[in-house]
Amino acid sequence: MQRYFTDATLTVGAHATLNSTVEHHAVTVLRMQVDDQLEVADAQGHAFVTTITKTAPLTVRVERPIPQSHELPVAVTIVCGISKGQKAELIVQKATELGVRQVIFVNTQWATARWLPDRAAKKVARLQQVAQSAAEQSHRDRVPQVSFVPLLDAVLHMEADAKVVAYEESAKAGEHAQLIQTLRQQPRSLIAVFGPEGGLAPAEVSNLNDVGFVNVGLGPRILRTETAPWYLLAAISTYTELQEEQSDRVNS
Amino acid sequence: MQRYFTDATLTVGAHATLNSTVEHHAVTVLRMQVDDQLEVADAQGHAFVTTITKTAPLTVRVERPIPQSHELPVAVTIVCGISKGQKAELIVQKATELGVRQVIFVNTQWATARWLPDRAAKKVARLQQVAQSAAEQSHRDRVPQVSFVPLLDAVLHMEADAKVVAYEESAKAGEHAQLIQTLRQQPRSLIAVFGPEGGLAPAEVSNLNDVGFVNVGLGPRILRTETAPWYLLAAISTYTELQEEQSDRVNS
Repeated sequence: MQRYFTDATLTVGAHATLNSTVEHHAVTVLRMQVDDQLEVADAQGHAFVTTITKTAPLTVRVERPIPQSHELPVAVTIVCGISKGQKAELIVQKATELGVRQVIFVNTQWATARWLPDRAAKKVARLQQVAQSAAEQSHRDRVPQVSFVPLLDAVLHMEADAKVVAYEESAKAGEHAQLIQTLRQQPRSLIAVFGPEGGLAPAEVSNLNDVGFVNVGLGPRILRTETAPWYLLAAISTYTELQEEQSDRVNS
Repeated sequence: MQRYFTDATLTVGAHATLNSTVEHHAVTVLRMQVDDQLEVADAQGHAFVTTITKTAPLTVRVERPIPQSHELPVAVTIVCGISKGQKAELIVQKATELGVRQVIFVNTQWATARWLPDRAAKKVARLQQVAQSAAEQSHRDRVPQVSFVPLLDAVLHMEADAKVVAYEESAKAGEHAQLIQTLRQQPRSLIAVFGPEGGLAPAEVSNLNDVGFVNVGLGPRILRTETAPWYLLAAISTYTELQEEQSDRVNS
């Protein structure tokens, strides 16, 4: 069933009007009609099955909650050095499918591309749309938030249960244990920093380490700047969503 | 250090001449000179540090083996339904970074795109180049093999220790345990089938199930056709490369 998002908070039995972008997609593109059903996830990250009662403006009756969560049990923030070309869109789209909660782009010392603050707002708005589309398509319960900070310093004091930095030199040195050790602590939130194509400067890694970011290796192969966050998200899903189910079965 | 591949089998102390594509990249693009070092992985999947002794034709002296393997401990074959546009290139590039051993593209019933056998050879040759570049960049010890088969039937009787199919309906039904159960058997080879955008037809899944392919869910979010094989490869890496290191440490 098609899934959309609303900024409202939904309750079963009530009606809700969806915004014009959703109306255009559902009514004009997909030609949905009165009595057709669609899923709507609300501002609280709760999803419901709804029935269309009116198409202009698009209005739905909230039928029943969808109990199964589609959210990673760890709220993951990825912080990505700016890359050239269309990589930011690809990072956001795939990271959304893989369950990311927040994506922050940041200018770093060794990056070969840089966003100017006055043009970043437009880029972020475009990337937020990419996140929204990918969240609908992958049946997320929340749309990840995309933002930009001009300096890595802004990331140093963000709060999270676990903080890691994907440092290529750690991977090359054969570091394979730290990510799992971090996940064993059952963090409810995790922030992970990824360098751009040129990597992070040693001074940047050192600054991150000083405030508690731990270097993690992501397997023995050298991953491109966009692949590394996807690997991390898939690894967290594997550890928390596939294994947990597994231990449930073993215990039952 | 830059990594290249050779079809030869290398031995320490011997000299080897690399092919003209490698010569162009190393000498013309990167401006490497006599006495510069580069890594070369040979036909056996063994990698060595080498020193350039001549630039035309590019000739190296084999100095020493690189003991650390960059290959997934499970030889993974992914079989992908044909998708529209440039997705095949993206699938091959990222799957190579994530450790795939073989990528097979196949026409399926519900696909919205189809490769004609007479044009497939050219596509496969191009994709093989993508695999080679990605293997160099990610420091693989082997270049994954790319191929095309016109019918899914050709896949039914391929040999592998484990055979899975990523079936969207299984994921929707909340199947979260099967992949880990499969990996617990410590397969040395695994073949995984992924549908195109339209998904696999139930009859196709049924045919796969009949010959021992097991339906696996890849977490609660709905992944696009290109994202699903990346998730699988990252999950296998997490289970075999991150966890194994972990248990080594626990035991030592």
